[in-house]
Amino acid sequence: MSSIFTKIINGDIPSYKIAEDDNFIAFLDAMPLVKGHTLVIPKKEVDLIFDLESEEYKNLWGFAQQVAKKVKSAVPCVRVGVAVVGLEVPHAHIHLIPLNKVEDMNFRNERLKLTDEEYKEIQNSIINS
Amino acid sequence: MSSIFTKIINGDIPSYKIAEDDNFIAFLDAMPLVKGHTLVIPKKEVDLIFDLESEEYKNLWGFAQQVAKKVKSAVPCVRVGVAVVGLEVPHAHIHLIPLNKVEDMNFRNERLKLTDEEYKEIQNSIINS
Repeated sequence: MSSIFTKIINGDIPSYKIAEDDNFIAFLDAMPLVKGHTLVIPKKEVDLIFDLESEEYKNLWGFAQQVAKKVKSAVPCVRVGVAVVGLEVPHAHIHLIPLNKVEDMNFRNERLKLTDEEYKEIQNSIINS
Repeated sequence: MSSIFTKIINGDIPSYKIAEDDNFIAFLDAMPLVKGHTLVIPKKEVDLIFDLESEEYKNLWGFAQQVAKKVKSAVPCVRVGVAVVGLEVPHAHIHLIPLNKVEDMNFRNERLKLTDEEYKEIQNSIINS
């Protein structure tokens, strides 16, 4: 069965897309810890990020670097944090999280509930930054 | 003033080193969230990881991939998580954290206090894995 992220890649589940190329895609987390929380994933469905072939793995991080710079420009924060956890969805994904304090990266925190309008506003501000 | 990590690189502060090359170094975190918690850093003193030049940035992640595989082999865990936070030490560093549950990556958790013997045992098991 396809992972939820493969369904997003295929457009079977809608998402607020930030960037995409042949191998990678970035979109807003549907359960954000903070505004601007973005996921970066390989299109290839691999569970563990460290199991990606070396070049693809490094290119994924390169893609994430470009996305992170856009997030940092668009979202007020001290810095953009990075997390790879992956205990819930078995499709490697990098969290880019605008941080103002260490507590912003606690995955046990209650997630934000944003409106479609709020998501679109964040999406556009990151894309256009 | 040199960052605490530059002091570790220069050997002015002792550490339990895991791996090193001309540009990068990995060592056990002195305040580990879990056993095997490892830091991977560029020798160049740069605050924000995303400010590293693209090739060096990607090579840092490549170095971290090799270290993470050794940590995964040596330390019992479901997977090795990744975090970049950096609100405390202004020298880019990647946390590699052996995870069994999402709570293992909560930076507000109390840190482990290990003996020198315990650190050396973990260090050797990772190096030799």
